[in-house]
Amino acid sequence: MQRSPLAPESAPNLPPLAGVQIGTMNSGVRYKGRDDVMVMAFDPGSVMAGVVTKSKTRSAPVEHCVDALAAGGDARALVVNSGNANAFTGRAGDVVVQETIKTAADVFGCSLMAVYVSSTGVIGEPMPQDAIPKSVRALGPKLQPGGWEKAAAAIMTTDTFVKVATETAKIGGVDVRLNGIVKGSGMIAPDMATMLGYICTDADIPQPILQTLLTRAVDKTFNCITVDSDTSTSDTVLLAATAKVGNAKPENANDPSLKDFKRALLAICMDLSQQVVRDGEGASKFIAVRVTGATSPGAAKRIGLSIANSPLVKTAIAGEDANWGRIVMAVGKSGEKAERDLLRILIGGTEITANGMVVEGYDEAPVAAHMKGQEIDIEVDIGLGRGKATVWTCDLTHGYIEINADYRS
Amino acid sequence: MQRSPLAPESAPNLPPLAGVQIGTMNSGVRYKGRDDVMVMAFDPGSVMAGVVTKSKTRSAPVEHCVDALAAGGDARALVVNSGNANAFTGRAGDVVVQETIKTAADVFGCSLMAVYVSSTGVIGEPMPQDAIPKSVRALGPKLQPGGWEKAAAAIMTTDTFVKVATETAKIGGVDVRLNGIVKGSGMIAPDMATMLGYICTDADIPQPILQTLLTRAVDKTFNCITVDSDTSTSDTVLLAATAKVGNAKPENANDPSLKDFKRALLAICMDLSQQVVRDGEGASKFIAVRVTGATSPGAAKRIGLSIANSPLVKTAIAGEDANWGRIVMAVGKSGEKAERDLLRILIGGTEITANGMVVEGYDEAPVAAHMKGQEIDIEVDIGLGRGKATVWTCDLTHGYIEINADYRS
Repeated sequence: MQRSPLAPESAPNLPPLAGVQIGTMNSGVRYKGRDDVMVMAFDPGSVMAGVVTKSKTRSAPVEHCVDALAAGGDARALVVNSGNANAFTGRAGDVVVQETIKTAADVFGCSLMAVYVSSTGVIGEPMPQDAIPKSVRALGPKLQPGGWEKAAAAIMTTDTFVKVATETAKIGGVDVRLNGIVKGSGMIAPDMATMLGYICTDADIPQPILQTLLTRAVDKTFNCITVDSDTSTSDTVLLAATAKVGNAKPENANDPSLKDFKRALLAICMDLSQQVVRDGEGASKFIAVRVTGATSPGAAKRIGLSIANSPLVKTAIAGEDANWGRIVMAVGKSGEKAERDLLRILIGGTEITANGMVVEGYDEAPVAAHMKGQEIDIEVDIGLGRGKATVWTCDLTHGYIEINADYRS
Repeated sequence: MQRSPLAPESAPNLPPLAGVQIGTMNSGVRYKGRDDVMVMAFDPGSVMAGVVTKSKTRSAPVEHCVDALAAGGDARALVVNSGNANAFTGRAGDVVVQETIKTAADVFGCSLMAVYVSSTGVIGEPMPQDAIPKSVRALGPKLQPGGWEKAAAAIMTTDTFVKVATETAKIGGVDVRLNGIVKGSGMIAPDMATMLGYICTDADIPQPILQTLLTRAVDKTFNCITVDSDTSTSDTVLLAATAKVGNAKPENANDPSLKDFKRALLAICMDLSQQVVRDGEGASKFIAVRVTGATSPGAAKRIGLSIANSPLVKTAIAGEDANWGRIVMAVGKSGEKAERDLLRILIGGTEITANGMVVEGYDEAPVAAHMKGQEIDIEVDIGLGRGKATVWTCDLTHGYIEINADYRS
């Protein structure tokens, strides 16, 4: 698979993060000649926050993560495989998850509920019973402090580039770091976390606060991206905090000491989530849709997603066609309040419509030039209220169909 | 544009229908060398029922149809053009509609509210001010009893074949006929009528009853089809009754004398709506998705549409890949109640899953053979209740992207 033309030119080097050790290998589940399982171990005292798919047919690993988070969010190990989603695999799939967490609990000397598991790949194919537990046992003694890029590579499926990000922040004068990896390029739609993403920090933040911070950040990042409007059965974003730096514990999610950490968490979530869009299956253009003037922030997001998910809008952009009439259509079908004569549409900063029709003397030349670029900006002002939101997507090209018409074989 | 491989082998010949006269010509709005405007005149005493798009950015012609229906549904004329949707064209677009209905009212000696107007084509481009009114005046004296196929051809945009249908029925022992035409192949999604469709009958049915019958039929036909999940600003289905045959007037929508007429109306709506799917942009396969066992009929329809609108399901079918895991995904993302261990999935009549996993000894050979055909049947039993619904769609192919990445030029 060719590297996406929208991929960042280079990836940052991720330094080791105190309290986290990593190992990868080939498990034999599906892919040959590459690592397909990743294990992270967290030092005692680490906690986990998480957000998972809203799908009603979510996978066995996701069900376990929900249970583990509900049990208090202690974190000692994370096991992720690619190649098989272990979704819709019945009781046999549940057994694989149980065997995996039992093995990890034994290897790392922790409770079952301190182990987190994810699987990504084909839905509905039986998982080999032993491959993942055996890999956990094999990797256990070999984990090392670094290796984030290897971990990001091991969890890839149709991804065309490795997705990592790192940020630093201060909590009460103490330096903390966030490292993150993510995978995803198809079956991406915003309804709780929309891919597999793992972020770790060495900060000391109690689990309930960590959960609140993650949920807020995901809502503005991972939940604002869409590639194809399809929601995975496996999507999970986890945030582990190892408490290895001596910052003063924040008292609640609104503690002023967390201001800079929140900025860094939002930045790393934004970076990782936009990398997923940049690797959207077949993507040739990265599209930002900014909606203002909606009756509420939720309405703005729904209008933005209606535009971002419209196959007609996405194919027009693929064709570099400034067919703004399709944006009007997508606003209309969103179900949210809109009035023709108040709607303003701008592409690449050029105003196209106002007062319910094309602006006087509209010159398509600058818009046509903008459409030829790789970064497309669409702005829609509904003109009714103060609700605003930005969502990100990619265009719909022949590449998407090529990738998805023959994924299993 | 090549004729869709899913087009019916031949179209029926539509006989004239008492009380309806038809004319077509080239208006100069956009297309050269083909008719692009169609006028139908109805004898005095005719009534109209209608269903229109739920879009919040609906076009000026749609707004007028809503007003005319609300004014009582008298019907004397229908004017439809292709090439320009007169949508999002501001007050200038409203003026075109006003001039069109004034001209038709003058030509046919009727009230403004007995004239119906539709426009289909590009959104947002200004309509020439005079082209349609001039065409109405030119066609007025030349209308003829037949010409249904020409009418169907004049309203086509990206359609690759002419779509007509005819049915007969008895009302209280009296023979009545229904003739219908429809256009549509993209921007098709079920949220009230999803294309332009015009059906006429010579039966004598009071307008409020006609409206009820049409709404019910559309709900099971035009509102159960989807090509790309996009909802047009222009969609309209109208049903005119000319009262030319001497059937006894039914007293209400549940009058037993209407039983056979309802069957025929459902049949013609089904025929026309499925023709639209068969001409879905780029379609190579016609897909029926039958959902049973949902908690309600509405839930069944929403699950069906979640499957039918999933780009991943549609591309898998385009690739003749029996990737049933994507059907599981689409059930999961519908938001409707589902339980993994109760879900049954059949493709082409072959049971694939039961009890939350693939069936013992599942043989993909017959399913793979079915996937190679042009007519794909998907059945999903949710196993929770009695709600059922069937929806129809087509696959998502390179053809869809070819057509839509460069539609305006």
